[in-house]
Amino acid sequence: MNLREEFNAYRTKMNEKILAEDNKVIKRFFNLDTNAYAEGALDVKTKEMLGLSSSMVLRCDDCIKYHLEKCFDAGVTKAQVFEVFSVSMIVGGSIVIPHLRRAVEFWEELENQTND
Amino acid sequence: MNLREEFNAYRTKMNEKILAEDNKVIKRFFNLDTNAYAEGALDVKTKEMLGLSSSMVLRCDDCIKYHLEKCFDAGVTKAQVFEVFSVSMIVGGSIVIPHLRRAVEFWEELENQTND
Amino acid sequence: MNLREEFNAYRTKMNEKILAEDNKVIKRFFNLDTNAYAEGALDVKTKEMLGLSSSMVLRCDDCIKYHLEKCFDAGVTKAQVFEVFSVSMIVGGSIVIPHLRRAVEFWEELENQTND
Amino acid sequence: MNLREEFNAYRTKMNEKILAEDNKVIKRFFNLDTNAYAEGALDVKTKEMLGLSSSMVLRCDDCIKYHLEKCFDAGVTKAQVFEVFSVSMIVGGSIVIPHLRRAVEFWEELENQTND
Amino acid sequence: MNLREEFNAYRTKMNEKILAEDNKVIKRFFNLDTNAYAEGALDVKTKEMLGLSSSMVLRCDDCIKYHLEKCFDAGVTKAQVFEVFSVSMIVGGSIVIPHLRRAVEFWEELENQTND
Amino acid sequence: MNLREEFNAYRTKMNEKILAEDNKVIKRFFNLDTNAYAEGALDVKTKEMLGLSSSMVLRCDDCIKYHLEKCFDAGVTKAQVFEVFSVSMIVGGSIVIPHLRRAVEFWEELENQTND
Repeated sequence: MNLREEFNAYRTKMNEKILAEDNKVIKRFFNLDTNAYAEGALDVKTKEMLGLSSSMVLRCDDCIKYHLEKCFDAGVTKAQVFEVFSVSMIVGGSIVIPHLRRAVEFWEELENQTND
Repeated sequence: MNLREEFNAYRTKMNEKILAEDNKVIKRFFNLDTNAYAEGALDVKTKEMLGLSSSMVLRCDDCIKYHLEKCFDAGVTKAQVFEVFSVSMIVGGSIVIPHLRRAVEFWEELENQTND
Repeated sequence: MNLREEFNAYRTKMNEKILAEDNKVIKRFFNLDTNAYAEGALDVKTKEMLGLSSSMVLRCDDCIKYHLEKCFDAGVTKAQVFEVFSVSMIVGGSIVIPHLRRAVEFWEELENQTND
Repeated sequence: MNLREEFNAYRTKMNEKILAEDNKVIKRFFNLDTNAYAEGALDVKTKEMLGLSSSMVLRCDDCIKYHLEKCFDAGVTKAQVFEVFSVSMIVGGSIVIPHLRRAVEFWEELENQTND
Repeated sequence: MNLREEFNAYRTKMNEKILAEDNKVIKRFFNLDTNAYAEGALDVKTKEMLGLSSSMVLRCDDCIKYHLEKCFDAGVTKAQVFEVFSVSMIVGGSIVIPHLRRAVEFWEELENQTND
Repeated sequence: MNLREEFNAYRTKMNEKILAEDNKVIKRFFNLDTNAYAEGALDVKTKEMLGLSSSMVLRCDDCIKYHLEKCFDAGVTKAQVFEVFSVSMIVGGSIVIPHLRRAVEFWEELENQTND
């Protein structure tokens, strides 16, 4: 199982357990989290890049993986995703670099799967 | 003096003092900080929105003001900037809200000055 | 106008402007933010103390003020609020101290107003 | 070895090494960290929930595990711990979600061990 | 009253109120916070620079002011303090810059008072 | 492969991939990141300790490992590195402790390799 499959399998399994517990605030927040990235005055691609840069400066690896996958699916190119990385690194500093390494590894995997 | 003028006057005055001190790392970082938002694979408008959302989730009021002004100048509409706010708030949570209040106040001032 | 009145006046004014803009994600998040502190398996007093300690370790002065007021109204005593402060300071470290100073100033004002 | 045993074994081993080094500030801080959660004006259960929510918004997985175990031992119910999760998620935003997933996994293990 | 006097007056007044409340954890933490910067295997000057850089990357203006004053009193030169600033800015990114501006303003005041 | 070799192998591999992508902002930032720790008004040893304490309070394990190695090579003693740990823990609070555990483990490995 590669990084992408592993991440998504765990994410799906645990989200199901979280939503099975009948906590309305959590359920509604999960729903709102999905809606926030829907097309509106900004398109999905831009919103996913916003989600990615926010996740990078807050240094949340799982959030980065999630938005990298969405960015990839929305057609963000490699040169573009590296510009998102560069803005995030300038804003958040060198502590972003370890997350950048893992992000580049994950992006490479996304590209390789498409080439299969 | 309004919020925008006050912010820019202090920013300019202190940046001059910082750059007057001959610290090469700081000088080069300031330069790099400007370059990061230049047009490339992504346009200026998108990059400024990335800078804005990163600043919001990291809760840096002065950084928010700076990027709000740049976003405004780059043609980001009110509906669009509110979508940047909404993504930032979902990613960063309710602690973003006090910064959102000040951001909305600053944005309103940017709009009012244009109407003069 | 004292600290409490000033905080609440600005908060009310800006929340109205934010909600006047028709952004559904923001509106629903504001609503959810209120619901999260409603009585459930935990009582309001406990939830407000959770909101207070979370705000302290994240060092958000306005959030601290908001939850201090709610804690005060829910009957949290001075000895109890200082124990919330102590846990927050141990978890978050000495960088919490400047926020602790302002929190103590605000709490004192809440107590004084009641004595008027 | 399950998650709980693995976490506690490593924690115990390293704490011993840390305390073996004769650094008084660190030793006294470790001692203070324990005292902060002792019964006082607030009971242990409430203090542990404060420690849990603070750890969640600061996104420290090991701290979350530690306080989850303490909460469990103090009699926090599943419905209550999910309300702590919900407040933490609203305060800290969607970046808390990956930590929520791991928290739910750990809580499940705590419940299962009791059922053995 | 200048920045330094204003900061110290408020700090002293509120610390007294905090310590007047008989919370042992807070009192002991305040005591420990002082001890941490005492001469040991590292000298006071080095420890205060560590306190300064930590405060800068965590973006706590009051903590920065406190350690700037201590660094100044310990004989840190202007060129040295700017190197502390440069490391902090590289580690913490452009969001450190607004705090750098205020730090430079405060440092200038420390130098001017000595020249009086 | 031990912790140090594993960390450095991954770091080198990914840095090469990052720099292979022709993003000038990222390349220049990596270069600046190296320059920031060069001898100047402060010596390398002091700067590496600043980098270490900043990384600890920001809780970045990979950054901690990197600076621990540099500190070790620059001749920082065990008693000194524990004083850096103590300042970082006081500034950043108990959430630093899990990172302290891993830092002590890594430092022990650095010492053991030298003894081989």
